[in-house]
Amino acid sequence: MTDFAATRCLFHLPEGMIYLDGNSLGPLPKSAAERVAAMMRDEWGEMLIGGWNRAGWMAQPMALGDRIGALIGAEPGHVTVGDTLSIKVYQALAAALAMTDRKVILSDNGNFPSDLYIAEGLIGTLGRGHELRVVEPEAVEDTLDESIGVLMLTEVDYRTGRLHDMKGLTEKAHALGIVTVWDLAHSAGALSVDVSGTRADFAVGCTYKYLNGGPGAPAFIYVAPRHAETARPALCGWLGHEAPFAFDPDYRPGAGVERMRVGTPPILQFAALNAALDAWDGVDMADLRAASQRLSERFIAEVEARTDLVLASPRDPARRGSQVSFRHPDGYAVMQALIARGVIGDFRAPDILRFGFTPLYLGEEEVVEAAAILSEILTTGTWDRAEFHQRQAVT
Amino acid sequence: MTDFAATRCLFHLPEGMIYLDGNSLGPLPKSAAERVAAMMRDEWGEMLIGGWNRAGWMAQPMALGDRIGALIGAEPGHVTVGDTLSIKVYQALAAALAMTDRKVILSDNGNFPSDLYIAEGLIGTLGRGHELRVVEPEAVEDTLDESIGVLMLTEVDYRTGRLHDMKGLTEKAHALGIVTVWDLAHSAGALSVDVSGTRADFAVGCTYKYLNGGPGAPAFIYVAPRHAETARPALCGWLGHEAPFAFDPDYRPGAGVERMRVGTPPILQFAALNAALDAWDGVDMADLRAASQRLSERFIAEVEARTDLVLASPRDPARRGSQVSFRHPDGYAVMQALIARGVIGDFRAPDILRFGFTPLYLGEEEVVEAAAILSEILTTGTWDRAEFHQRQAVT
Repeated sequence: MTDFAATRCLFHLPEGMIYLDGNSLGPLPKSAAERVAAMMRDEWGEMLIGGWNRAGWMAQPMALGDRIGALIGAEPGHVTVGDTLSIKVYQALAAALAMTDRKVILSDNGNFPSDLYIAEGLIGTLGRGHELRVVEPEAVEDTLDESIGVLMLTEVDYRTGRLHDMKGLTEKAHALGIVTVWDLAHSAGALSVDVSGTRADFAVGCTYKYLNGGPGAPAFIYVAPRHAETARPALCGWLGHEAPFAFDPDYRPGAGVERMRVGTPPILQFAALNAALDAWDGVDMADLRAASQRLSERFIAEVEARTDLVLASPRDPARRGSQVSFRHPDGYAVMQALIARGVIGDFRAPDILRFGFTPLYLGEEEVVEAAAILSEILTTGTWDRAEFHQRQAVT
Repeated sequence: MTDFAATRCLFHLPEGMIYLDGNSLGPLPKSAAERVAAMMRDEWGEMLIGGWNRAGWMAQPMALGDRIGALIGAEPGHVTVGDTLSIKVYQALAAALAMTDRKVILSDNGNFPSDLYIAEGLIGTLGRGHELRVVEPEAVEDTLDESIGVLMLTEVDYRTGRLHDMKGLTEKAHALGIVTVWDLAHSAGALSVDVSGTRADFAVGCTYKYLNGGPGAPAFIYVAPRHAETARPALCGWLGHEAPFAFDPDYRPGAGVERMRVGTPPILQFAALNAALDAWDGVDMADLRAASQRLSERFIAEVEARTDLVLASPRDPARRGSQVSFRHPDGYAVMQALIARGVIGDFRAPDILRFGFTPLYLGEEEVVEAAAILSEILTTGTWDRAEFHQRQAVT
């Protein structure tokens, strides 16, 4: 059994805060600041440019890729880390489109908007009459047909936590000759993902949510081994070249997923991410999933026993990711009032109160207390103060 | 007069090392480790997701953009920071191509290979018969004609330090209806750049060279005010959206250069970069340029007095950036021997010994000593040992 009491000790959690927003930004691993400081002092400070070889910086995108790959069921050597998730979506989608003559990208309106924007931007850049077809999440399966070239989905809906059937949809897509791009932003570190077993063609994700890599931590991309040597990179950066330091005038793609590297990777962010990934050593993803479901179920039960909030997430825990959402017409103000009481979740337009459950550092007592505070805020009406209605730039 | 003795005190320089590679990776600013640690402890650790508002993380791409903008002559509010230089080249080039019906991108073989690769990748993605025409640097001016849509150049040649006439070429390009994209990788923090005065259309650069932002420090992009509200972003990430937190299904570009933001910015790298940029407070770029030329001229004189190395850089200091290169048929081994003696420059294929001059932290004595050591290595033939011929992954 995974020892979650031990993993909890690895994170700094502020006094008096119940943090139910690890699905947006994970907390600080206690070892991260010293890890980054050591990298800066001993590697950047002392080795300077020599750090690329001597400290192994150049190899880190693939080394980190393997650490993340182990958490998402990827074959070793088939994940690389760098850039941001939006960039990785662009890379995956461009490579997927290059594998088909069909013009339609199918997605759903539960996909994170940036993925849809990236698709729009790519379609505009291509200028060849591609179409982004966006349907309701529940309609995806029935919409799949031979007109569709690429199915691009986020496995877990950022609003409701609804979980797509990644294996089933991928199978059906493949039977129809459709290439799949899966965004695992809310899956990696939250679920027992198996990109290899589900036969996903491309998968991407970020590392600042459940993986706790810190603000602006880099993204990752997986290319299935069967495509790795033929996938065509759209963002042909020098570090994706077969021999970056040969300074060839012409681009030749690197081996496998290495071609999805672009520019100089962010070594400070990498140091923090490496520290964060240590917390996963010894974690069994099935244990994690079970613990996440226990916490989520308990939260739903407590909230429903105390309030009349309407559940926005699927009731069946097997159909949810690691978050629970409720609807409230004044969700923004309610969330601000909660935050003022130290319960941190987030609001997603138009009416979603979103709570993430992260067994690595979250226990059942806090979940119960969070529900009690939420109930108190709703019962006493304290959420309906002017101060809680004032919009901030980032919500 | 700029006090370079004072700026030198701001950097950590390893004992016994003469660092002539600040044009590849700048040294560690002494304040950077504590700045990053404080950000991690006080902002990420204590504010968690709240840091995006309360610590101002969300505003940093533009705030850092203005700090860099001041060093390259940009109008305030017209530079944003994030991603890598290769990504920023892609953004600038894609936006530039969208402004013209012409199909030819003109560049030179002194451009950094990644810029050329990115252009090749973009052309492949566009699939509409664009052409990348690559000429000798000296032939650029005469090749400009009305068939060319975009002129994409790096101002300073990464091999030889040869400096393009940014103002003259931009003027001639504009007269012919050509859009310009300038890569300032080896210019920002090295020269008195004036993107506004030269009327560059787009400019991009990195911050880990002369700006000392650290390994993997983010890139920047400048869009001329006259294009800022019409430039079409190809990488339509959510943070370039007019209202990222509205989670609109459709992309609407943000105001001005903000549309060139893509995904979640790297806040740890930003903290280090902010510390590094403090060193520029009070630096007069004309003083810096003069000091760089003094150091470079002295180095050339010392090397030529002691060795028969052939200068690969322009002899006229007004036509060089802030580096000096010499040719040697066994340049790789010579550079390894130099590095073994604590003189850090770098080798660029096929035969270039490259030395960067960075007045912020480099003095004349070290330049003379570096030349003496180089001369000793060449005279005694110590470079011709097997160990110095062994290639490393990164050189």
